[in-house]
Amino acid sequence: MKSKLILLLLLLVSSVYAQQNVHSKPSALVSPQINEDNSVTFRLHAPKAKKVEVMGDWEALNGRGTMVRGKDGVWEYSTPVLPSELYTYRFNIDGVVVTDPANPFVRRDVGNQFSIFYIGNGCADYYQVRDVPHGSMTTTWYHSNQLNADRRVSIYTPPFYGKMNKSYPVLYLLHGSGGDELAWVELGHVARIMDNLIAEGKAEPMIVVMPNGNVSKQAAPGETSENLAYRPVSTNQLPGYKKGTYEMAFSEIVNFVDATYRTIPEKSARAVAGLSMGGFHTLFVSVNHPNLFDYVGMFSAGINFNGIDMQLPPYADLDGKLKKYHEIGYRLFWIACGNTDFLYEANKDFLKRLDTLKVPYEYHESSRGHLWANWRQYMLKFVPKLFK
Amino acid sequence: MKSKLILLLLLLVSSVYAQQNVHSKPSALVSPQINEDNSVTFRLHAPKAKKVEVMGDWEALNGRGTMVRGKDGVWEYSTPVLPSELYTYRFNIDGVVVTDPANPFVRRDVGNQFSIFYIGNGCADYYQVRDVPHGSMTTTWYHSNQLNADRRVSIYTPPFYGKMNKSYPVLYLLHGSGGDELAWVELGHVARIMDNLIAEGKAEPMIVVMPNGNVSKQAAPGETSENLAYRPVSTNQLPGYKKGTYEMAFSEIVNFVDATYRTIPEKSARAVAGLSMGGFHTLFVSVNHPNLFDYVGMFSAGINFNGIDMQLPPYADLDGKLKKYHEIGYRLFWIACGNTDFLYEANKDFLKRLDTLKVPYEYHESSRGHLWANWRQYMLKFVPKLFK
Repeated sequence: MKSKLILLLLLLVSSVYAQQNVHSKPSALVSPQINEDNSVTFRLHAPKAKKVEVMGDWEALNGRGTMVRGKDGVWEYSTPVLPSELYTYRFNIDGVVVTDPANPFVRRDVGNQFSIFYIGNGCADYYQVRDVPHGSMTTTWYHSNQLNADRRVSIYTPPFYGKMNKSYPVLYLLHGSGGDELAWVELGHVARIMDNLIAEGKAEPMIVVMPNGNVSKQAAPGETSENLAYRPVSTNQLPGYKKGTYEMAFSEIVNFVDATYRTIPEKSARAVAGLSMGGFHTLFVSVNHPNLFDYVGMFSAGINFNGIDMQLPPYADLDGKLKKYHEIGYRLFWIACGNTDFLYEANKDFLKRLDTLKVPYEYHESSRGHLWANWRQYMLKFVPKLFK
Repeated sequence: MKSKLILLLLLLVSSVYAQQNVHSKPSALVSPQINEDNSVTFRLHAPKAKKVEVMGDWEALNGRGTMVRGKDGVWEYSTPVLPSELYTYRFNIDGVVVTDPANPFVRRDVGNQFSIFYIGNGCADYYQVRDVPHGSMTTTWYHSNQLNADRRVSIYTPPFYGKMNKSYPVLYLLHGSGGDELAWVELGHVARIMDNLIAEGKAEPMIVVMPNGNVSKQAAPGETSENLAYRPVSTNQLPGYKKGTYEMAFSEIVNFVDATYRTIPEKSARAVAGLSMGGFHTLFVSVNHPNLFDYVGMFSAGINFNGIDMQLPPYADLDGKLKKYHEIGYRLFWIACGNTDFLYEANKDFLKRLDTLKVPYEYHESSRGHLWANWRQYMLKFVPKLFK
């Protein structure tokens, strides 16, 4: 009865202020509720719904759960105990898939919004804000002559940047298909990962540069002059997908960063890494610019080369370019993939190719598939190896 | 039949990739659809729903509309013709209030997410990205000795900042209750407004500084070390609400900005403005620091002084402080309010007070209430008056 009264009261308060746009109604329900044993309870007030399911990205039960209707029309479901990570989820209410209306925290992944929560005491402690010195996050624009456009880029600068007479190494970090310059920031939690690794002394203070890898778009959906008419889609639906243009124009980004930020403008102080399509980009950015980067990271790289014109100059003679890159020299060629990733076999084939060429690398194999959980966890392993 | 097949196909694609987290399913529905006459059509696939309503923040029909179920379970509703603005809306599906699952673009306003769209050919043209030189947006942290904490602040720097040997005036822009350092960025669209006004020559290139006005919180919800446990609420539910601490510590923010950015560190090159609670803050920041700001803007200011201890030193002797500020001198004291705002009478009372004191001001009265639409439109009027 009490909760019914609270709901009624909240509805009244909500409608009184509706015209005034004071959207301050806190939800009467707690959802998600992180339980002491690291299970999670979801709640939804949907008195007229017939069936409600939770659809999440955790491994247990394939992230699915059927909610049970309780009194007052509140549906509830509790997950099994979950390992530490950042998780995303949505509710399927009688076939309508939506974010959790009681959870104000969401992230966009390609074309959909997802509700989020963290399970701590593990890797997700690096994805959350701690009481440590914080770096800064900037979105700015550089001009590309080769792409004939101003292009948006996200840049992390470490704590105390600009406060001391100090220059920094730079990690260039590339997103996957359907992503953009915000993907590593919003879903990758790069600023928190860097702040926390640096605070623990596990990573060198560095600048992280996250460009937009969609050559026909200047910025993320909603941030170009097309505004909301450019809806997020997989990058392979956009013009210019994997034509080599981006990889060949990459030195423009490096030049912009070296001209604008307090960098150490040397190969020994530069790394490039990327996930999925960004791993493909990383491969061809590095081998086509063998004097730019000493550190390379390929995370679940999209290197099945399906539908790619491998005769295009940026992609042609990959074996020769890999051998040349090895001859010129690099410090780290780090490859990681999940053992259920749909790109797992392509990555294993690529390792054999490197073995045949006698091109050295480090390989990390994780469980699970083509997931942000893996890419964040790869960052925790890759970043501490840089610039040491 | 065709659309049923498409939906089935999309559901299949969606579930195949669910484990791999490739959330690339574009919606089969177009929603919202901006029509040529500037009406808007919403669509929702909800075959089992009994009643679906649109709840928006436009004025016509109080932003409400009842959707009509069509074939294939797709509900549809079209608004009247809407004037140019950024609008927010949600769907009420049988009592569950959610964002539009077909619209990837959302904004958080205090504790809720809202779907958004723009109606162009008017003020909203300033809220959208145009092909003009773009400034940069940064979130960084400063240390407050008086509040004994690192605190997060959003900073806009204009196009070509740092590229020329030039210093800039600074606008300090304060959020309302329930807001934070992201409110003016995300809902106020400050970066686009500034880029577009500067490109048209209507505004001087300037730096815009948006601090967090909640003294007991270091940053926005989700961005403090409480992480998601700090859920957004109205600021008056947080400790330290309107105790004068923030206003008295404000010079620390100015000192940080002058030490860190290419500013003109003079009163003639500083403005302070704020909405609602931020208008209250603006009043007491300016009169308590009469040598800091030459330009003051109060947007729908929360100056009913209800529940405030007006004997606290920052708030005491307001009349005397106003007269002194006038004696010392300022260039602009700009006050704006909507004629249906719940703070309208309080603002009219304040104007009478200024009249009695013979303290000069400019007043702009708009239609409508306590709305982001008004605050964005006030920016279009206020910013061109600065630093000229």
